[in-house]
Amino acid sequence: MRLKGFQKLTTIDETIRVFFSKLQAKPLKPVTVKLHSALDRVLAEDIIAGQDLPRFDRSAVDGYAVRAEDVVGASQFKPKTLQITDKNMIVDKQTRLLWTGNPIPKGADAVVMLESTRRIKDKIEVWVSVTPGENVSKRGEDLSKGDVAVKAGTRLKPHHLGLIGALGKAEVAVVERPKVAILATGNELVKVGGKLRENQVFDVNRLVLSMLCCEIGAEPLDLGIAKDDVREISAKLKNGLEKADAVITSGGTSVGGADLVPEAANSIGKPGVIVHGVAMKPGMPTALAVVEEKPIVILSGNPVAAMIGFEVFCRPLICRMLGLKLEPRPTVQAKMNRRIATTLGRKNFVRVYVFQQNGEFVAEPISARGSSMISTMTRANGYVVVPENREGLKEGEHVSVQLFDTVKVVDEDV
Amino acid sequence: MRLKGFQKLTTIDETIRVFFSKLQAKPLKPVTVKLHSALDRVLAEDIIAGQDLPRFDRSAVDGYAVRAEDVVGASQFKPKTLQITDKNMIVDKQTRLLWTGNPIPKGADAVVMLESTRRIKDKIEVWVSVTPGENVSKRGEDLSKGDVAVKAGTRLKPHHLGLIGALGKAEVAVVERPKVAILATGNELVKVGGKLRENQVFDVNRLVLSMLCCEIGAEPLDLGIAKDDVREISAKLKNGLEKADAVITSGGTSVGGADLVPEAANSIGKPGVIVHGVAMKPGMPTALAVVEEKPIVILSGNPVAAMIGFEVFCRPLICRMLGLKLEPRPTVQAKMNRRIATTLGRKNFVRVYVFQQNGEFVAEPISARGSSMISTMTRANGYVVVPENREGLKEGEHVSVQLFDTVKVVDEDV
Repeated sequence: MRLKGFQKLTTIDETIRVFFSKLQAKPLKPVTVKLHSALDRVLAEDIIAGQDLPRFDRSAVDGYAVRAEDVVGASQFKPKTLQITDKNMIVDKQTRLLWTGNPIPKGADAVVMLESTRRIKDKIEVWVSVTPGENVSKRGEDLSKGDVAVKAGTRLKPHHLGLIGALGKAEVAVVERPKVAILATGNELVKVGGKLRENQVFDVNRLVLSMLCCEIGAEPLDLGIAKDDVREISAKLKNGLEKADAVITSGGTSVGGADLVPEAANSIGKPGVIVHGVAMKPGMPTALAVVEEKPIVILSGNPVAAMIGFEVFCRPLICRMLGLKLEPRPTVQAKMNRRIATTLGRKNFVRVYVFQQNGEFVAEPISARGSSMISTMTRANGYVVVPENREGLKEGEHVSVQLFDTVKVVDEDV
Repeated sequence: MRLKGFQKLTTIDETIRVFFSKLQAKPLKPVTVKLHSALDRVLAEDIIAGQDLPRFDRSAVDGYAVRAEDVVGASQFKPKTLQITDKNMIVDKQTRLLWTGNPIPKGADAVVMLESTRRIKDKIEVWVSVTPGENVSKRGEDLSKGDVAVKAGTRLKPHHLGLIGALGKAEVAVVERPKVAILATGNELVKVGGKLRENQVFDVNRLVLSMLCCEIGAEPLDLGIAKDDVREISAKLKNGLEKADAVITSGGTSVGGADLVPEAANSIGKPGVIVHGVAMKPGMPTALAVVEEKPIVILSGNPVAAMIGFEVFCRPLICRMLGLKLEPRPTVQAKMNRRIATTLGRKNFVRVYVFQQNGEFVAEPISARGSSMISTMTRANGYVVVPENREGLKEGEHVSVQLFDTVKVVDEDV
């Protein structure tokens, strides 16, 4: 329950636990797509090998198929000579040229690499001995019929698609993209590209939240900008819940009075607001609501707090809808290059700029002051989570940085 | 120049240096796109702040605008009382309620956070003193007019788009996507989803190379599968060079005889093949050609070697076309959990599976034997580059792993 003025803040872990317990736990429905449209989608089925891979014994190298017994003791000083054939079967002292991937002819049990041979007319000299099976990819060595090639719940990368393709499957079942409706609220907001009047600002949160959705594989739906009016916000939230699997809002939630979005969420269905006021910084006024088992994440209008709120609440939520474990961001251990103060009793998300210098990662905190400043997000490439029981980070302290952008190497000291 | 049989292998660094020196150095043309279509594109222009950001002094918190001098010495035991107004100007002992982002009324120079006040009818009690400027985001604090907000050559992430949007720009100039034509060669190849006859295999390289192109922001064009025939390959290469900015092929290049693709590349224009035979494993038969200043990257038909070849040659090539510095993959330092042998004189790319255990990253090498096995790429989540002067990695050795997939935390020892 919401407590006016946040006498009580809920921790992030507790917020997520309570919030998720009110939501449907099962991932979204599967849809079938062609392999070349499946990049970064989440696999909805186990891919089982329908046959052995490779399907036949084949050469792992460019070389000559041999019977290992025919080249025992061969060396550069004492080469063995074999007769070339182009038949699919070799017998005593015969050999056949193979390119990588070619089937091993019957009778052969190994392949001598091309570099270890010399061709003389229709014969070759072999300079090395090989063991039976050497340079042969055995049938089923890669995958045996019935093996699970790729597990349901895998985010499909090019190499997964390659393996699925190697099994001959041209289509796969992937989890439907979660549809996430995004609403910005605030009388002061003007859409990007519009004309500003005095005291107005461009609405960047819809854009940023949409792009963050795209990054993680959700499909954003635009609910536009609502004025600071509970009836208008309620109507747009309802519309969002009809069209989408989740709604994210920014603005209209605060420490004190202007809690228009939580009020609207409570007015449209049950159970309504689950948590309001989270022990985090930035993002304290964040609220989480559930209406008819669908989630509404109510983020601060402050662009930086909205981005951090997406990271903390929407990423796990969307991963859950996708049937994925939370995908951690790449993390580096870095050394703080100056101290920074944080707020006791709240989990602080400190933006830092990490660079690599003399083989070490260094984290420079980006102005803690401007938590509302969107440029702090573009100057930073990661953030450090400072726990509730700390009042800051020390200079020289080693911290774990979650990266949301690339790390550059700066000039090394010579 | 190509030497038959690779008596001489060229190092990767030298190959890239020579290859790049024959290519056009300038990035592709810019195109203008809407902000919400610009995610992960590369910015082609500097974005200059056309005005200050914020545009006006505004509140960084929810609270009350005050004159700092009016609350000097305030505390919970000795609160100061101020009169609430809703005017855009406050005078002596007046205050006004502000939400985060609201403009600071004239006369006020600081904001007291809501939590540090108590409202009593049309007055408030203030329990803390503030310094002038406290909780105020000053005009231009985020960006001053004329500042470079985002530099040309930046890969646009949600936070960059947010900042560009905050400046009111609804469109940006981004670098055109490089068009990359992809050709597979080999009589044994059947398209994924087709019907296999004896000794045939599905062509996975076109799919995998296309997906790798998509991941890095290039647009793949499909040239299909060519039979092992120089004339057919030449015609398809020509077609690719007409339609695309670069061509990537797989198969038809080897240590010895069947160098159909290099032969085809040499037949269609100058200078033709620049390097053939690279000191790497897998991927030794890789060749690099240039025809009319356009690059042709000739990769092995072995799916794993083709993927590593893409990583080593095509990623830097596409980054260069995009006007980007090479984007390093996320890297972790990990401890090898067993030894592995590598080939002296070649740069070895050892696939490993990295996991996190007891707070440490552990790298498990994935069967060195099956370099042609595509499942080694799906079992791995990264690779270690072992330099030419090493014959392997030791158990317990700390190595730097380039990650191409996520890292899981396994059960910790208790």
